[in-house]
Amino acid sequence: MYSHLIDLNDYSTEQWNVIIDLARDIMKNPHIYEGACTGKIMGTLFYEPSTRTQMSFQSAMLRLGGGIIGFDNPQTSSISKGENLKDTTKTVSGYSDIMVMRHHLEGAVKAAALTADCPVVNAGDGGHLHPTQTLTDLLTLTEEKKRLNDLNIGVCGDLKNGRTVHSLVRALSKYKGNKFTFISTRQLGLPEYIKKALTEEGASCRDVSSIEEALPELDVLYMTRIQKERFESEEEYRRQKDVFILDARKLKAAKDDLIVLHPLPRVDEIAREVDDDPRALYFKQAHYGMYVRMALILIILNYKDFKPKPFFTGEDCGLKCGNERCIVNNEKGLPPKFVEEGDALMCEYCEERVF
Amino acid sequence: MYSHLIDLNDYSTEQWNVIIDLARDIMKNPHIYEGACTGKIMGTLFYEPSTRTQMSFQSAMLRLGGGIIGFDNPQTSSISKGENLKDTTKTVSGYSDIMVMRHHLEGAVKAAALTADCPVVNAGDGGHLHPTQTLTDLLTLTEEKKRLNDLNIGVCGDLKNGRTVHSLVRALSKYKGNKFTFISTRQLGLPEYIKKALTEEGASCRDVSSIEEALPELDVLYMTRIQKERFESEEEYRRQKDVFILDARKLKAAKDDLIVLHPLPRVDEIAREVDDDPRALYFKQAHYGMYVRMALILIILNYKDFKPKPFFTGEDCGLKCGNERCIVNNEKGLPPKFVEEGDALMCEYCEERVF
Amino acid sequence: MYSHLIDLNDYSTEQWNVIIDLARDIMKNPHIYEGACTGKIMGTLFYEPSTRTQMSFQSAMLRLGGGIIGFDNPQTSSISKGENLKDTTKTVSGYSDIMVMRHHLEGAVKAAALTADCPVVNAGDGGHLHPTQTLTDLLTLTEEKKRLNDLNIGVCGDLKNGRTVHSLVRALSKYKGNKFTFISTRQLGLPEYIKKALTEEGASCRDVSSIEEALPELDVLYMTRIQKERFESEEEYRRQKDVFILDARKLKAAKDDLIVLHPLPRVDEIAREVDDDPRALYFKQAHYGMYVRMALILIILNYKDFKPKPFFTGEDCGLKCGNERCIVNNEKGLPPKFVEEGDALMCEYCEERVF
Repeated sequence: MYSHLIDLNDYSTEQWNVIIDLARDIMKNPHIYEGACTGKIMGTLFYEPSTRTQMSFQSAMLRLGGGIIGFDNPQTSSISKGENLKDTTKTVSGYSDIMVMRHHLEGAVKAAALTADCPVVNAGDGGHLHPTQTLTDLLTLTEEKKRLNDLNIGVCGDLKNGRTVHSLVRALSKYKGNKFTFISTRQLGLPEYIKKALTEEGASCRDVSSIEEALPELDVLYMTRIQKERFESEEEYRRQKDVFILDARKLKAAKDDLIVLHPLPRVDEIAREVDDDPRALYFKQAHYGMYVRMALILIILNYKDFKPKPFFTGEDCGLKCGNERCIVNNEKGLPPKFVEEGDALMCEYCEERVF
Repeated sequence: MYSHLIDLNDYSTEQWNVIIDLARDIMKNPHIYEGACTGKIMGTLFYEPSTRTQMSFQSAMLRLGGGIIGFDNPQTSSISKGENLKDTTKTVSGYSDIMVMRHHLEGAVKAAALTADCPVVNAGDGGHLHPTQTLTDLLTLTEEKKRLNDLNIGVCGDLKNGRTVHSLVRALSKYKGNKFTFISTRQLGLPEYIKKALTEEGASCRDVSSIEEALPELDVLYMTRIQKERFESEEEYRRQKDVFILDARKLKAAKDDLIVLHPLPRVDEIAREVDDDPRALYFKQAHYGMYVRMALILIILNYKDFKPKPFFTGEDCGLKCGNERCIVNNEKGLPPKFVEEGDALMCEYCEERVF
Repeated sequence: MYSHLIDLNDYSTEQWNVIIDLARDIMKNPHIYEGACTGKIMGTLFYEPSTRTQMSFQSAMLRLGGGIIGFDNPQTSSISKGENLKDTTKTVSGYSDIMVMRHHLEGAVKAAALTADCPVVNAGDGGHLHPTQTLTDLLTLTEEKKRLNDLNIGVCGDLKNGRTVHSLVRALSKYKGNKFTFISTRQLGLPEYIKKALTEEGASCRDVSSIEEALPELDVLYMTRIQKERFESEEEYRRQKDVFILDARKLKAAKDDLIVLHPLPRVDEIAREVDDDPRALYFKQAHYGMYVRMALILIILNYKDFKPKPFFTGEDCGLKCGNERCIVNNEKGLPPKFVEEGDALMCEYCEERVF
């Protein structure tokens, strides 16, 4: 099987560290890596536009000397109109050495990997996974805090629906001594099953209801957006929104070596004035994303032993995935695959559980 | 004149074989050709989106070390809005070493070649020509059947309107001993003038009305789509459509060394289950398309003696082309050009005949 | 500060000559420059589509061995939807070594340069500036007339609103002995403040109301479009339009060594038949544009001492720019900047004056 990156958890933390270490070496010695992928092609299939992620992958491949094909515009691309996912991705994988894919349906990138003729990288599948964002965050912390353990990490925003946050805190819980502070409304807090997973790994967790309450102790503040329509009511929104906005005044209470991160794009949750504070590192974080993607591409194309845990082990046991946004319910001819997960059966594409 | 590829028939079968032989060598020794077009630029002007063809050309050029400019999206491209074809193509040809072009109007690519400052390749001009698809098919047969002669070839679908099929069977009729079986409805059969041309070349032809009738003897089954609206009536469609769908059951009656081809994209004419049959080669065929385009680009950019038969020999004899979808009726200032063709005069852009 | 090119006037004529001389050397010895930007990335942010300009920049960068990322399609790009200009351009500048940008708002490219992490090139900001078009025109004149001085230059079209023309005549006025003939309607003539600036530099100016009146004496005829809706009335349009159209008959009265230029795209202001006249150089002019952009990119990326006059010297003096199409009135959080300009204060982004 190819070295697909669908889910970060298909790889061990040792393998994550290999990626991060290579990214750091590329940052130090970029010229060594300039022609490392000459003659290789990256296919970028963005069924859902995400110009920032796509450009980050493209600049990564170009800096390694490789070339890029692909589409970014499902409305005007003939290939994504009418044709099923398999035929498109199978064909493009035949032109490519590595394929990067984003799709609005959950599990779609994994489904593409099932028949692709080259390794596939998940650049976001609906609200499900976005592993290269998490790798970006891990590289940023490694570079800026010099460690991935013993960090006091505040996470602010819509923690219920935020896939970036879920993935990051789960990843950080694998490193020792991390403490999480969750800053959100009662309704938009981190799901209990994730909190349970974190504490099982030994991480400490607490909930607070404002940035100000959390800020003084934090090493890292990871900001994300709360969409207006996620609040219980317009009135609730107006009453609460300010407590989830970071501004220069609030920052005064923070440590000198705090770092403020954000996966971008931001809307209003970080005031413009904060950009000039040396602790505001979200643009630098985006820049780190390019290097971590360079490392990832290099490893996938060149490290023969860098393999994920086996997947596609699931079976068609006559069940139907209950997730309407799962690819298996939207792509004709895709075989259902269920794996055992604790007491439940889990759809192998989107991780929806059936009890 | 530049080595434009507008119509495969502008070149001899010996020249076709040069392209195919080079494509085979590239497949065997890809590294030799890696930097063969370094510093060269391919302009890709897709006035009509065709992401698959465009990506095939792009990956071909990138694998040779060249670069790509162009547009794929006439709606949002300023260059294709308002401006006439000549000004756009003339300008882009000045930035390019080779220009690949697709257009919804017949003869448009030839019209561009009239004033371009670099060689132009036809990637499809309306329902008219698509020569690199035919080259792809010839390479596929050469690789998979080890010959282009003495083949028993079934062609299924809408044979009346299918430009891919017309071009392929005419090309194959130039090689000895080929037998064609046409599988279609009475209304959508191969036009008589093409059948006449095939038999004049010495090929044998027969018509059948179902895949099952033809399949046992075939070496090659070339599938294409019949659009629902081409049937005489909804009732006729429901009654007939299954006989033009290939599935695993029907395939049982075929030879072990049959190969199933399809220019893609497919809709329903090949059941998904067929994909797992080793005789299903349509994805591999798409992959061959990349190599044949690499060979073509290399030859056009490097082989000084690889020249087409002279064209643009036509004259403005006061006639008007009767084809509304011909470029000459849609582009101001383009000179009409008619050449003699048997008893008729033929528009040199779209090959419409005036008697 | 980076070597941004926002306004040609931020550089001296000596610096312009360095760009033009390098462009000429690239044309003579293209192979020397083939790998000169290997490993470098150009970000092309086209908030307003301009396929021709974009392709010219892209082919320039590719011919130097560099790579390209970017978007050309604000409707389908997620990055330009919702997100503010600063966040987008700041992030992309982190992936790029040089950033080329076009925007429909005046001053937008300068605003991007304020926070960008790489040099920024203005590829057109609304009706304001388009410096690489002027560099193209200067290279064309240098190559085709062998001089930038003592030229008799006719400029035809809408001279009131044409940014290309304003920029060109101001640039040419810096060279000695140039005579300008302005061919336009009374309502669409060159603004008085520009005429004043030209005569202060020592250039001679005259106005005429038809091409025929001007043509016999000209060394250069620079054609631009007059939009129908700029005429005073439909009747005025019908009565006058022909005097601003160049055709073969009028050209008979011109010198043998006249050259006809046009920034393209044209509509009807130059008849098709003129294209075949050896004096019609507008397609060649577009081709020169590629070389001047190659020179510009090379210089910006490699010449450490090639710096503009200081800008961003303006202050927030409590005023509001009166130009609704200025970026400062459209981008939240952008600091107003006013500089003294004669008796007035001038918005540093869009050059609107407040008295």
